[in-house]
Amino acid sequence: MTIGIGLLGLGTVGAGVAQILASPQGRHPLVAELALRRVAVRDLQRPRPIDLDSALLTTDPEAVIDDPAVEIVVEVMGGLEPARSLILRAIAAGKPVVTANKAVIARYGEEIAAAAAQRGVYVLIEAAVGGGIPIIEPLKQSLGANRIQRVSGIINGTTNYILSRMADEGAAYGEVLADAQRLGYAEADPAADVQGGDAADKIAILAALAYGGSVPRQAIPTNGIDRLDARDVAYAEQLGYGVKLLAVAEQVGLAADGAAELDVSVNPTLVPRAHPLAGVNGVNNAILVEGDPVGRVMFYGPGAGAGPTASAVVADILNIAGIRQVSGVTSQGQPAPLDPLLAAGSWRPCRLVDPAQTRHRNYVRLRTTDQAGVIGRIGTCFGDAGVSLQSIVQFQAQGGDGGQAEIVVITHEVSEAAFRTAMAAIEALPVVDHVAACLRTL
Amino acid sequence: MTIGIGLLGLGTVGAGVAQILASPQGRHPLVAELALRRVAVRDLQRPRPIDLDSALLTTDPEAVIDDPAVEIVVEVMGGLEPARSLILRAIAAGKPVVTANKAVIARYGEEIAAAAAQRGVYVLIEAAVGGGIPIIEPLKQSLGANRIQRVSGIINGTTNYILSRMADEGAAYGEVLADAQRLGYAEADPAADVQGGDAADKIAILAALAYGGSVPRQAIPTNGIDRLDARDVAYAEQLGYGVKLLAVAEQVGLAADGAAELDVSVNPTLVPRAHPLAGVNGVNNAILVEGDPVGRVMFYGPGAGAGPTASAVVADILNIAGIRQVSGVTSQGQPAPLDPLLAAGSWRPCRLVDPAQTRHRNYVRLRTTDQAGVIGRIGTCFGDAGVSLQSIVQFQAQGGDGGQAEIVVITHEVSEAAFRTAMAAIEALPVVDHVAACLRTL
Repeated sequence: MTIGIGLLGLGTVGAGVAQILASPQGRHPLVAELALRRVAVRDLQRPRPIDLDSALLTTDPEAVIDDPAVEIVVEVMGGLEPARSLILRAIAAGKPVVTANKAVIARYGEEIAAAAAQRGVYVLIEAAVGGGIPIIEPLKQSLGANRIQRVSGIINGTTNYILSRMADEGAAYGEVLADAQRLGYAEADPAADVQGGDAADKIAILAALAYGGSVPRQAIPTNGIDRLDARDVAYAEQLGYGVKLLAVAEQVGLAADGAAELDVSVNPTLVPRAHPLAGVNGVNNAILVEGDPVGRVMFYGPGAGAGPTASAVVADILNIAGIRQVSGVTSQGQPAPLDPLLAAGSWRPCRLVDPAQTRHRNYVRLRTTDQAGVIGRIGTCFGDAGVSLQSIVQFQAQGGDGGQAEIVVITHEVSEAAFRTAMAAIEALPVVDHVAACLRTL
Repeated sequence: MTIGIGLLGLGTVGAGVAQILASPQGRHPLVAELALRRVAVRDLQRPRPIDLDSALLTTDPEAVIDDPAVEIVVEVMGGLEPARSLILRAIAAGKPVVTANKAVIARYGEEIAAAAAQRGVYVLIEAAVGGGIPIIEPLKQSLGANRIQRVSGIINGTTNYILSRMADEGAAYGEVLADAQRLGYAEADPAADVQGGDAADKIAILAALAYGGSVPRQAIPTNGIDRLDARDVAYAEQLGYGVKLLAVAEQVGLAADGAAELDVSVNPTLVPRAHPLAGVNGVNNAILVEGDPVGRVMFYGPGAGAGPTASAVVADILNIAGIRQVSGVTSQGQPAPLDPLLAAGSWRPCRLVDPAQTRHRNYVRLRTTDQAGVIGRIGTCFGDAGVSLQSIVQFQAQGGDGGQAEIVVITHEVSEAAFRTAMAAIEALPVVDHVAACLRTL
């Protein structure tokens, strides 16, 4: 029973998908039943890494969706529009969708899910987060018995590559970024990666699956690595931590109406060396899920690239093809019932809590006058605000720091409100020149 | 729509499952639809960690299966019989089965799968390998696009705990084992764990899923950690390796008839410190899957314990409950079609290759006469057999080693046949007292 596949986009990932479909031998036998029927490309003449029958190609993506031979639509073109409209068009046509588009799902996931549920089709998104790492499917189908406490991930390969090199080489951010761009690990416009937006898209998606409800993407507090100083990476190292761009979604409460209250954010974060996420280096990604009763499980692997991402896209196609064999007996004309795990509909509201009410450990680097009593005055400001400290260390002034000292503070877990009160008082101290850095700590 | 669950066994895992079913709030909403209908126990009077209506309990497991209110049978009693017969009885009654029983699945998986396929019911086994780590479902449903090259895992928590402590404390195997038994990390009869049989059961299961065909469990070459000397752990450490009990299934060829030719084994193995599996310590498990085009993905977490294992069991129950909603429209009386991914039937034969034809890196420790020229003679034996070496190191003789030396050799990847030829020649050298240890190296 052949299943017709329509591909929207034939870039790196699209070509990777076509490659798998063209070489089924040694893969799951269902792969051999998938047949590429139509492929939308931007430019018919452009040279491609894969040899496809030119009769399959079209510059009209709607023609792909509308082609009666296309039974599953695979959106790997990226970007918000026309991707969103095309996904909705496929759903309206009753065709299941597989997409790798985290930006669309993070922003329009609710709209798309509602349309899909109404029409009775699946929209599967394994490739949207973590590249080839199976994480969407496990969250939907393997961890449902748990109360999820926290999902924390290194889910942007570009920034993890940059941070790994900054740590290994003691190099400056700008220097490593430029090199990463030369090597193809960072885009010419790196904003979405280095400012944390890509990680925020992905944690919005993971949180929605882990907690059963849509999370407002635009409200996620997001800090990138673009202002990270190599000095903080070096100090963190000396204190026993690595610096990672962590995306975290944590349930901090349960509202009276049954809504999950979540603290979701993206921040450069000090990770203790013994933590499972600390060893995740280079372009690899990892997602740690903490739940009751499972404890801590981690998923690790290549977070991007043609092969890994195509592996995830084809997995989703296979899942749709597999479940079709079960629901194939449905009477024609009416929407098929969906497997509630695979369809992953919302089952409760989720709300982000006021950031001021969240609790975290913090890392602060202060540039101060180099004189006796400074540490005492800073410690007093923290104490007055009820912020208890794990450590306060004065680092040796570096060349060119004449007359100034650097003081690094790591707090215990404290409320963000109390921390901000303390920081305002500290900034007002005459001996404090400025707050040079403020990061999270696990 | 309530779904009736029958439990065979109310030990640690069974009680964990009952606990989850009794407290659905905050878990996937499908959990609330699962109702425990009947529980088979060995002794009605025994005190239990969970308060259950005594009317649910019976000492007759067949009564649980035959109870019309029981729609899904959960086998968590362990052992080969009566577990195998009860699983087959449930299948014959058309009831899907969830089991955590790796010993039964590793030995009778083919028989059980055939019966299940014929009757059109699922037998799900997520809890059989890796405790709470989702690994069965990802292999079945998320990695099907790949040609799997290798699956390697730390899949026995007891031995990993013992090895971690041997490495940390430089302690002897027997000493740590005794302590692990006191602390409840090792059984009173530790044979299945420390001799590698439990890991062999599990790698047989993983290999069958990864390569699409049953693997003869009894033919898997299996070496445990029960003869491991603390000295080798210490030498490995000095050479940049950790020692782990690795279960590995690797595809080494493709037979003319389409059968996958596999090298499957369990061995104490030196793992380079930078390898993702090297950091997996204590009772944690991890499974590394290497495939084309996904690359390397790793699954990490607690490999045993009531909570994690129950999380996996309930995940399987949820999957059956979820897919029932799709296939619920089937006409009564005839077997429902199965989702081929979830059902995971065989799709090609798998064969173990002759161990002599496999290729590995090896670690060898020799006790020799402490005299000039020994290293040369040993090196010559390896060279004559075509075994190329990565390193050959003489370690300082320890107290009581009067007149003897210890020589540690690490080979490059070589054929087992050539390695055995070299070792026979080396054992015959007059300067070699004996071969003190022989381990694998990644």
